[in-house]
Amino acid sequence: MSELIYEGKAKKIFSTEKSDQVKVFYKDSLTAFNALKKGQFENKGSINCEITCLIFDYLKKQGMATHLIQKLSDNEILVQKAQIIPLEVVVRNVLAGSTAKKFGKEEGTRLKAPLVEFYYKDDALADPFISDDQILCFEFATLTEIQTLKKLALEANRHLQALFSRCEIQLIDFKLEFGKNSQGEILLADEFTPDCARLWDLKTGEKMDKDRFRRDLGGIDQAYKDVLGRLTKALK
Amino acid sequence: MSELIYEGKAKKIFSTEKSDQVKVFYKDSLTAFNALKKGQFENKGSINCEITCLIFDYLKKQGMATHLIQKLSDNEILVQKAQIIPLEVVVRNVLAGSTAKKFGKEEGTRLKAPLVEFYYKDDALADPFISDDQILCFEFATLTEIQTLKKLALEANRHLQALFSRCEIQLIDFKLEFGKNSQGEILLADEFTPDCARLWDLKTGEKMDKDRFRRDLGGIDQAYKDVLGRLTKALK
Repeated sequence: MSELIYEGKAKKIFSTEKSDQVKVFYKDSLTAFNALKKGQFENKGSINCEITCLIFDYLKKQGMATHLIQKLSDNEILVQKAQIIPLEVVVRNVLAGSTAKKFGKEEGTRLKAPLVEFYYKDDALADPFISDDQILCFEFATLTEIQTLKKLALEANRHLQALFSRCEIQLIDFKLEFGKNSQGEILLADEFTPDCARLWDLKTGEKMDKDRFRRDLGGIDQAYKDVLGRLTKALK
Repeated sequence: MSELIYEGKAKKIFSTEKSDQVKVFYKDSLTAFNALKKGQFENKGSINCEITCLIFDYLKKQGMATHLIQKLSDNEILVQKAQIIPLEVVVRNVLAGSTAKKFGKEEGTRLKAPLVEFYYKDDALADPFISDDQILCFEFATLTEIQTLKKLALEANRHLQALFSRCEIQLIDFKLEFGKNSQGEILLADEFTPDCARLWDLKTGEKMDKDRFRRDLGGIDQAYKDVLGRLTKALK
């Protein structure tokens, strides 16, 4: 018995026979601007599924806890059921997108140290940016959880920067989500894909991520395939 | 010799003969939504000037450092010249306005503890909300300064809640600005007026602040006069 528990913009979650495990199905759909812009391309689901598996396996080898148990098919993975902490955790190494715009900074400005930002996960509210004090005030997470999320996000960033550098890709920024499993352990959950990261070719500066779709640059399928190809090679 | 140094939306700053002192002139103009909405009323400048003087004198008596030296005329004060820290420091006791809207909370929700928020002072960027980590990243203030600003804002809030309670006014939220004088001391600067605070009548819940203008409720001049009248009486 496998029932649809939740359908998101790019993934579906199904129950399994085990109460502490769920299946994640990666869809071919693509959305931007809080789903105001919609698209899709063939094999997008399987490419993103494989990228997430490669990245999460790699982070596991570096000692980080993730929800991934195993890959089930081209676009399906089995994961630990986790109660998602309602915060999108963004790490920025180079300014781009909303934060660059908001503070009038040029896209491409390298930061002296990585910046961690939180956004409150709520589609109806368009995932508003949130400060630590607001998180505490609204009891979306505890101070210890905030500190753990920042530590884990920066740890992931160190490992990912090393990995993407081997792929000749600049890791500009990315979004992570975390959940708590039944033992209360905080796990890296959700995904790591070019849907929620900015990846720029190290030599040409060319965008290899969802900005190709957001900004109508074309060639998004080739860019995602290229990211997967380089990761596969680097992780061999 | 007195030269205009700066003209803001509701005040003008003039130089004085002393290099470490400036004059602040309170205008009758009123703006909202980053000056997209404009208005004015007679004596608004002198009412706000007097309210700021009463509040700053009161906070000084409670042991807080402010930029106010003395009142010069109905709508002019002499203040210590201070390098303004480019952060608007907002304290909320009850949710209203932008934060209530952003997080889908009902206006009027009382918070368990006061919430301090920072907004980056930049009219061209419409004063964006900013997190502590972003402030540090962009070097708008140091960690010590952030901690000091929060401590001073909460201290002011305690004193102001006590004062407004004597006026039968609920102190919903307010914005402060701070500056550093030539000795590097952090002073409460700018103003405290119904332009940058939400003040609700304790019994009727009626708004006695700039929301009357923002939301076209009328009677703004009477509301500001009423705030001044109650403060004058309470501080006699």
